[in-house]
Amino acid sequence: MGRHEALLATQARPRMKRRDFLGGSGLLGILAAGSAPAVQASQAVRWRLASSYTKSLDLALGGAQSFARRVKELSGGKFEISVFAADEILPSFGVFEGVQRGQVECGHTSPHYDIEREVAFALAGGIPFGLEARQMAAWLAEGGGKELLQELFRAHGLVCLPLGNTGGQMGGWFRKPLRTLADLKGLRMRIVGLGGKVMERLGVRSIALPPADIYKALEQNRLDAAEWVGPYDDLKLGLHRLIKYYAYPAWWEAGTQRALYVNQRAWEALSNENQAIVRAAAAETHAEMLAQYDARNPAALKELIAQGTRLMPFPPALLEAAWKAAHELTAELAAKSPSWKKIHASYARFQQNITWSWGYSELAYARFMHEKALLQQERAKSALARRR
Amino acid sequence: MGRHEALLATQARPRMKRRDFLGGSGLLGILAAGSAPAVQASQAVRWRLASSYTKSLDLALGGAQSFARRVKELSGGKFEISVFAADEILPSFGVFEGVQRGQVECGHTSPHYDIEREVAFALAGGIPFGLEARQMAAWLAEGGGKELLQELFRAHGLVCLPLGNTGGQMGGWFRKPLRTLADLKGLRMRIVGLGGKVMERLGVRSIALPPADIYKALEQNRLDAAEWVGPYDDLKLGLHRLIKYYAYPAWWEAGTQRALYVNQRAWEALSNENQAIVRAAAAETHAEMLAQYDARNPAALKELIAQGTRLMPFPPALLEAAWKAAHELTAELAAKSPSWKKIHASYARFQQNITWSWGYSELAYARFMHEKALLQQERAKSALARRR
Repeated sequence: MGRHEALLATQARPRMKRRDFLGGSGLLGILAAGSAPAVQASQAVRWRLASSYTKSLDLALGGAQSFARRVKELSGGKFEISVFAADEILPSFGVFEGVQRGQVECGHTSPHYDIEREVAFALAGGIPFGLEARQMAAWLAEGGGKELLQELFRAHGLVCLPLGNTGGQMGGWFRKPLRTLADLKGLRMRIVGLGGKVMERLGVRSIALPPADIYKALEQNRLDAAEWVGPYDDLKLGLHRLIKYYAYPAWWEAGTQRALYVNQRAWEALSNENQAIVRAAAAETHAEMLAQYDARNPAALKELIAQGTRLMPFPPALLEAAWKAAHELTAELAAKSPSWKKIHASYARFQQNITWSWGYSELAYARFMHEKALLQQERAKSALARRR
Repeated sequence: MGRHEALLATQARPRMKRRDFLGGSGLLGILAAGSAPAVQASQAVRWRLASSYTKSLDLALGGAQSFARRVKELSGGKFEISVFAADEILPSFGVFEGVQRGQVECGHTSPHYDIEREVAFALAGGIPFGLEARQMAAWLAEGGGKELLQELFRAHGLVCLPLGNTGGQMGGWFRKPLRTLADLKGLRMRIVGLGGKVMERLGVRSIALPPADIYKALEQNRLDAAEWVGPYDDLKLGLHRLIKYYAYPAWWEAGTQRALYVNQRAWEALSNENQAIVRAAAAETHAEMLAQYDARNPAALKELIAQGTRLMPFPPALLEAAWKAAHELTAELAAKSPSWKKIHASYARFQQNITWSWGYSELAYARFMHEKALLQQERAKSALARRR
């Protein structure tokens, strides 16, 4: 899910007026209280959180709600955060700016929504051929990622903490099977972000559409392909009723990490205890959201197949071309953004080592276990057939 | 790492006397205070935590220390947990019992240390051909795992929360390359737990040794093979100086989850706020430990190879035989333990679905990325060779 569709997804709702942003207690009220951290610890803190996600995205909006519930519990009720869905107080794509300006103390969003401001933000969320969820956590913890991203966001007046990950996504939906790289030429595909930029280099006409519009665009034959998230979220959208081939692997979003943005001054006004509470609540919720996607995706994929979806591996030549185009893009971004250059160097070095070593641990194991799962499935089918 | 070696690893230390267990404030003191939860929230709470790990296992013992530090921060200093390494107040394998009896309020250990009491505990830690770290988190969150394990441990007077995971391990060290299943016959291997029981079915003579003794046993030619944890912990042990072939994948411990055990009465005496603090601190520390292993293992594996270690895939026939033996063992355990039968049924169903679906997401992606990492490595080597 990218910037454009989330923006467009909310167009149906009435536009807010600017004065609404400034209503409520907000950051200024909190800052005006001006209590020293030690004192503030026992005082009530009230924050507002603006989410980029609408109510229909239950796991995404739900993450912010879980986070707020945990902050309240951990503080014995003294630290309360009110959560607002997209467009209730800020538009989907206004979260970064709203938090930066102090219109709200914090927000929940996808870092790649704001790559036009600074492309390096994408490194906090996910990039084509990037780190998967566990690898991302490892880079942040001990690969230098946390410090580099802290420095990046501090320069923009924000604290950024991981708050959720979608886990492995799928490679999108295609009307016709892809057999060669040439099959991409001129394809009208709904895809956004850095993945869209790579696809464009392969001849795709990328089209930014909100999720609510993808279905209609497919129905009216204005699209030949579309990507959204993964089985759980895609099943909800119902694309499988119109389009058949579901590609893998999802090289443009191996797992998108979502972010909690906190206004730097609001963060600094918190007591040490409340900062620890925000960090711990975010960490627990981050893990919870990934676990929810991981748990729900398999059943959703099974259901899609039962309803006629066909799994389709990307042709090797296509993957190779995408890999090459992504590296060309990366080199161009390094020439444009010093932050991208610096942070991506650390990211890429870490990724090279971990993807190599996983060939002898996680990958080797997953490969064996997947083959066994396929075999078990076949046996179960045969047994069922014999009983009939 | 299994029950026996951790027990033996601590034999060098002076044995504690039983009265030491009962010294200190302990649970009885806390319970005697008898404050109602609502009142207790603002009162000081002092707990003791007994770890099964010695100081040499920095990531394992460090997990309990990080957890205690977080609890203190989150409570603004009001909830303090003193951490004791193995044998300081309880022996490595006395943690379960010590927490159960209330000698300490909580402990940090590996659930499979106590499978002789109840083999189903292994399902909270890791079993042969079991779930890897993310899958385990997903099963706990939404696959029914959390509720089933809660019920299991409650019947033993404990609350059990995940507190750390080793990530993907390796398949142990072998003196000679394994080419066929027959090469295992009569092999004297240091291996413990359910993995050891499977290996015995394949003709291995499993020998339980503490880590400190493995090196000497290899040196004196009393072992032909040995398993410990993974690259980071194995490098510390120095086995690679004596033994060359490092097998993969680690089918007997795909990732061992460690546990925080809390005495049920001590748990119930906590305020809601303090319960939330324990949960959040455990969740944040759990993720941190996995990220630390994930981040450190690749460099350690590289270092091992630089020092002469040879990576060796298990022969397919061996993996097949181990798979079959593990399933036979599982069936026998189900006949012996109703808890294993009930919980394993949920675990196995969940695993079947997620390992199947990962073939089209995480696995398909990891496979491509690993091939690219190998290629990049080859190119870097060639470039280096050309420059020389």
